[in-house]
Amino acid sequence: MKAKKSNFSEWYTEITKEAELCDLRYNVKGFVVFRPWSVQSMKKMYDIYESELEAHGHQPAWFPALIPESNFLKEGEHVKGFVPEVFWVERAGSDALEEKLAMRPTSETAMYQMYSLWIQGASDLPLKIYQSCQVWRCETKATRPFIRSREFYWIEAHDCFATKEGAMAQVHEDMGMAETVIHMQFGVPFIFFRRPQWDKFPGADDTYAADCLMPDGKVLQLPSTHMLGQNFAKVFDVKYLDGTGTSQYVWQTCYGPAISRIYAAIISQHGDDKGLIMPFALAPTQVVIVPIVKGGNEKEIEQKCNELKKTLSNSGLRIHCDFTPNTPGFKFNQWEMKGVPVRIEIGARELESSEYVVARRGAKEKSKVKEKDLANAIAKMAGELQSDIISIADKWFSGMTHSASTLSDLEKKIKEGGFVRVPFCSTEMDGEKCAEAIKEKMSGNVRGTRFDKHEKPKDEKCVVCGQKAEEFVYVARQY
Amino acid sequence: MKAKKSNFSEWYTEITKEAELCDLRYNVKGFVVFRPWSVQSMKKMYDIYESELEAHGHQPAWFPALIPESNFLKEGEHVKGFVPEVFWVERAGSDALEEKLAMRPTSETAMYQMYSLWIQGASDLPLKIYQSCQVWRCETKATRPFIRSREFYWIEAHDCFATKEGAMAQVHEDMGMAETVIHMQFGVPFIFFRRPQWDKFPGADDTYAADCLMPDGKVLQLPSTHMLGQNFAKVFDVKYLDGTGTSQYVWQTCYGPAISRIYAAIISQHGDDKGLIMPFALAPTQVVIVPIVKGGNEKEIEQKCNELKKTLSNSGLRIHCDFTPNTPGFKFNQWEMKGVPVRIEIGARELESSEYVVARRGAKEKSKVKEKDLANAIAKMAGELQSDIISIADKWFSGMTHSASTLSDLEKKIKEGGFVRVPFCSTEMDGEKCAEAIKEKMSGNVRGTRFDKHEKPKDEKCVVCGQKAEEFVYVARQY
Repeated sequence: MKAKKSNFSEWYTEITKEAELCDLRYNVKGFVVFRPWSVQSMKKMYDIYESELEAHGHQPAWFPALIPESNFLKEGEHVKGFVPEVFWVERAGSDALEEKLAMRPTSETAMYQMYSLWIQGASDLPLKIYQSCQVWRCETKATRPFIRSREFYWIEAHDCFATKEGAMAQVHEDMGMAETVIHMQFGVPFIFFRRPQWDKFPGADDTYAADCLMPDGKVLQLPSTHMLGQNFAKVFDVKYLDGTGTSQYVWQTCYGPAISRIYAAIISQHGDDKGLIMPFALAPTQVVIVPIVKGGNEKEIEQKCNELKKTLSNSGLRIHCDFTPNTPGFKFNQWEMKGVPVRIEIGARELESSEYVVARRGAKEKSKVKEKDLANAIAKMAGELQSDIISIADKWFSGMTHSASTLSDLEKKIKEGGFVRVPFCSTEMDGEKCAEAIKEKMSGNVRGTRFDKHEKPKDEKCVVCGQKAEEFVYVARQY
Repeated sequence: MKAKKSNFSEWYTEITKEAELCDLRYNVKGFVVFRPWSVQSMKKMYDIYESELEAHGHQPAWFPALIPESNFLKEGEHVKGFVPEVFWVERAGSDALEEKLAMRPTSETAMYQMYSLWIQGASDLPLKIYQSCQVWRCETKATRPFIRSREFYWIEAHDCFATKEGAMAQVHEDMGMAETVIHMQFGVPFIFFRRPQWDKFPGADDTYAADCLMPDGKVLQLPSTHMLGQNFAKVFDVKYLDGTGTSQYVWQTCYGPAISRIYAAIISQHGDDKGLIMPFALAPTQVVIVPIVKGGNEKEIEQKCNELKKTLSNSGLRIHCDFTPNTPGFKFNQWEMKGVPVRIEIGARELESSEYVVARRGAKEKSKVKEKDLANAIAKMAGELQSDIISIADKWFSGMTHSASTLSDLEKKIKEGGFVRVPFCSTEMDGEKCAEAIKEKMSGNVRGTRFDKHEKPKDEKCVVCGQKAEEFVYVARQY
């Protein structure tokens, strides 16, 4: 493996290939084949995120993948944002279709026409529905597996409320779910920013997006939650009768965790120079058992491996015995590279003593564990692994925010990677030209203002135009 | 609700609407919105089927939804079978694509080019991969929700083997999984037929398909498993080096359980004149708690409902308390219609005695259960419900096969519904004209020969042409 710190880009390319996470040789540009080792983890990520959404009152639905062009054309900003990237279906068999159909790049315009039929009174609210699906966008930016491709796997939650306050509470809930799932369970820290007005979701009043950092210090955007206000409600006629019998437009939010992209953040955050390090809950194989065969005891050892596999599987663990003809050393490297959290070695000595050598991915030392204590020892290692990866990630992430007060200082620090906090004139539309200047001069991207704390400049001046700074914004290079 | 037996078609239409299973008002012809009540069950069906596939050595992958036209054109029969139904993408944004892309109607031509890259030696076999996804086919037949739509939800498993025997063993395994999942867990009986040569999967050597019966006696095809032979292997160059260093084509099978269609079979098989009856494991809500409030004890009863919900949820049950302002009688009907397996009623008397009225869907009598025994009683009811629905379905299904030896007898019995067993000249291509005669004259469809038993005519003559009968085939009207 390449060194991750000094050469992240090559490390990433290599690990996606060596660990058989995906295959880029599929013959449609920008489309990737996701192989079993990544899909098994991403399926578990889906389960965890869906459970969290359901625990917060969401229900699953499946909406069509194709959306009529006329639906799209209804919301002006939305059209401008997405139409240039849409894959269009214009023909079925040899017949031209009456109306062009868009392969969904996102589902607002598919779902809200149905919401308009489903919502009548206040008792139908809140309506909270999600779907897990693929979306398609013909990206013009360079694609990278899991990070950005023309087909990706996400969850989209679309919620309706009677009041603006209800919708805003949902924005907070969405952020909380990201914290519970992505930070606490997947071990990836991030900051939620309120995006500048020129960089919000097309059709939204406001966008709040979680930015994590890749090891090279560049930002990767994770879930965003959008306050849609009543923009789509007015266009799709989503109304309810309030207590006084008056028809009111609903307030809406939408929320989009991209599972394949979060997977990119997980493997990049936790991996090391040996390969992947996977959170225990997401590892396709949690424990690998490696037989160490020397002269003649092959059958007994194999039997013992299978016996342990059976016992441990009963405690709900995902176990694999590696009986391939490779050397133990090769196997150790292979499974470490694939990020299997725990390895048990079984040789002649272990067979005799019923005490096994157990190694935990990411830990420096191996330990010896008696057979009867194995399940407990593995559970303990799972906990240690989880707290290790989170504390390593948090420590690193907290050191990745810097401040600058001049343009040249900003330029220097942006190059070093991470977020750079600067005083800034305004994230309303007025400030766009200052953001563009930063982008042109130093490829820095204004991510917005922190949502979790109120940071108000006193006498600072905008780092670009020198006008009075109304806000502190965070700047970073981005994926 | 309409009476199911006498008017199945209207019953079906009504239940899909009343139970909020789907919405047909989406504005693309043949595309359906699947609503939470059905999606929650179908997600559980996916979990169960995927676990079964994984227990039999399959691994999940995700292949692109778009397939280049040139991939499609490689296998002649496959092209003829699918191209007339393909939705084509020819444009992204405002740019014409270099090559037309098919929205996958099935994934052989997406997957096997990758298999050709992944398989090198005998140690790479068997390769057993599945994906859970949607497929799109612009059906010309009339669409019906869950039964046939232009977008449907399925699992497709695509397996490669070193030998023909290995592939044939997979065909048997596929049938076994259908028995375990669809019959034993979902309660839907079926017969596997070897389809006539003129009715097999385009590109396969042989197709084996499970036919169940809808309440009106018409056949609905459930999963089929296909012996692909080496047809696709030759076209996509899927080869391995055998023990002697010789390059050999693999033998392939594919298997396609359509989850949305199996759902149609489940609700149709088990439902009654009150509405849905769902297998316990698939019910979105397994137990509904209905408060019976009379004068002033509202708060205490609500508290008790929530308390029971919490306790029972801890035993892994999915519980809902219905606190809407509707009458108890309305609620009873509503939740029976939605197929919730168990109902607990809590009124003043129950609050005092800690003994609750418990009703099981499909059972004639209610019972009284002490609070401490509730979890056990519900588990017992779940078992009774499961054995009930299976035995009712099996009994009905076993009475739905008849025999005929003349064309007029066949015509009469086909009209009555179910399978009619007749002596038949041949299910090789020679017999196609006799099958067509049956179809034209009486809308009967030759489903093929039974796979589970060898039935060889002695001196019988083909019911159509009067030539020596080589086989017994089963004829039925179909969806």
